[in-house]
Amino acid sequence: MADNRPIGVFDSGLGGLTVVKELVKQLGNENIVYFGDTDRVPYGTKSNETIKKFARQDEAFLLSKDVKLIVAACGTVSSVAGDTADELPVPFIEVVSHACKAAVNATKNGKIGVIGTSATINSDEHRKQILSLSPESQVICQSCTLFVPLVESGWIDENDVVVYETVKKYLAPMIEAGVDTLILGCTHYPILSSAIKKVMGENVSLINAGTATAQAVKELLESQGMLSTNTQKGKISYFVSDITPSFSSIASLLLGQDVSENKVTQVDINSL
Amino acid sequence: MADNRPIGVFDSGLGGLTVVKELVKQLGNENIVYFGDTDRVPYGTKSNETIKKFARQDEAFLLSKDVKLIVAACGTVSSVAGDTADELPVPFIEVVSHACKAAVNATKNGKIGVIGTSATINSDEHRKQILSLSPESQVICQSCTLFVPLVESGWIDENDVVVYETVKKYLAPMIEAGVDTLILGCTHYPILSSAIKKVMGENVSLINAGTATAQAVKELLESQGMLSTNTQKGKISYFVSDITPSFSSIASLLLGQDVSENKVTQVDINSL
Repeated sequence: MADNRPIGVFDSGLGGLTVVKELVKQLGNENIVYFGDTDRVPYGTKSNETIKKFARQDEAFLLSKDVKLIVAACGTVSSVAGDTADELPVPFIEVVSHACKAAVNATKNGKIGVIGTSATINSDEHRKQILSLSPESQVICQSCTLFVPLVESGWIDENDVVVYETVKKYLAPMIEAGVDTLILGCTHYPILSSAIKKVMGENVSLINAGTATAQAVKELLESQGMLSTNTQKGKISYFVSDITPSFSSIASLLLGQDVSENKVTQVDINSL
Repeated sequence: MADNRPIGVFDSGLGGLTVVKELVKQLGNENIVYFGDTDRVPYGTKSNETIKKFARQDEAFLLSKDVKLIVAACGTVSSVAGDTADELPVPFIEVVSHACKAAVNATKNGKIGVIGTSATINSDEHRKQILSLSPESQVICQSCTLFVPLVESGWIDENDVVVYETVKKYLAPMIEAGVDTLILGCTHYPILSSAIKKVMGENVSLINAGTATAQAVKELLESQGMLSTNTQKGKISYFVSDITPSFSSIASLLLGQDVSENKVTQVDINSL
């Protein structure tokens, strides 16, 4: 058995490319269709009802590309709109549950921190999942509204005073609580790993949801006999709802390799 | 002659409420209909084509409320989508031209700074208008992507290290160039005035586009005999495309008076 259809990945914007980066590392011969809703980014400050509507449209777009599996590479969608998956004809993998499992495995003192957008943190989804896996855990949550614009401005150097002080201000409650494990609950945040490490110290485990999610995708495809038989390097197709002036620079930063504007196709997502 | 219809004001989000605040100061008995496109905010990082499409929908909504005049209380729309006004059956006032006139009047050394969103700064509209009014001027422009999320997070205290360092980093080129006048080219920015003053020094004139725009609205209504004959305090009706969890706190901060969630109506702007 095999399934050579592409893996579909979507995000509110370009942050999901950090998940694509992990998929490429672990499943290099799979084709991937990526959709980034750059016209309507960010989702993280919007209402739950709006986020669910957007998630359904994003999923409909990927289904129109005949994907074999959909990855919600977006902490906000995973936290708030996970139930939209019930309507899908293909398997659905989101980033919250796998990050929570990895955190519960990593912690030694049972104190786990979670950072994400406002919508992700307000949903309290990480806390619920961590406590159902490990009821004795202590979970400390913090929304970090400025992290996405920092990353999208390319302000990521841990020695930059703005970057360092912003990270320090948001993470102060984590240090005070003595967490030994910190979930990066938004797919943009791995780009700030160096600054986060500098603030939290080397002994704190950072959980990159992309790594855990790519592992889950691999296990699901293997167990269902759905791996591709491609022997070549997989092809990534990029679709966005708005080609913004900074697309290339931000996409390349997040993916860790060059993505030029002429490799991307614009989609009218509101019509879906 | 008189015209008792309301003034229509729109913005990509809630920043335009700083313009409403100035309108209330100068034209307290006028009724106002405000539309904030909180579902699709921010416009400032989107493409020009998308911004124009959104502006036309926002204008169509206000026209459906029978307004006598439309104010684009948004630096991005004013810079990029001013020509959508050609299609309107009512007068249109935007925030760029009046801010430029005020800056040219205020400067003594001819060095004018402009700060705004990426789309506003990339449009170069302020520079063009300042140079057409005063060809000898030197114009220094800087986009300040983090200012809107700072304001919307309520991080506005000039003594906060993140606020101060962020403002200082963005404004360094302004200080180096020796500008004596600085246009706040985004309607969120007046909320950061104290921090901007602390960085720029007391001798630099800050141009609040809202103040200049409200003055222009008053002059237009007077000259056209379109002032309201209301003798009561005017009524403000709030419409948004998404009622976000932080609506009340952000709206109250920007307007300078309490705006509770139950005073606002949600609109499906994509259907217009």
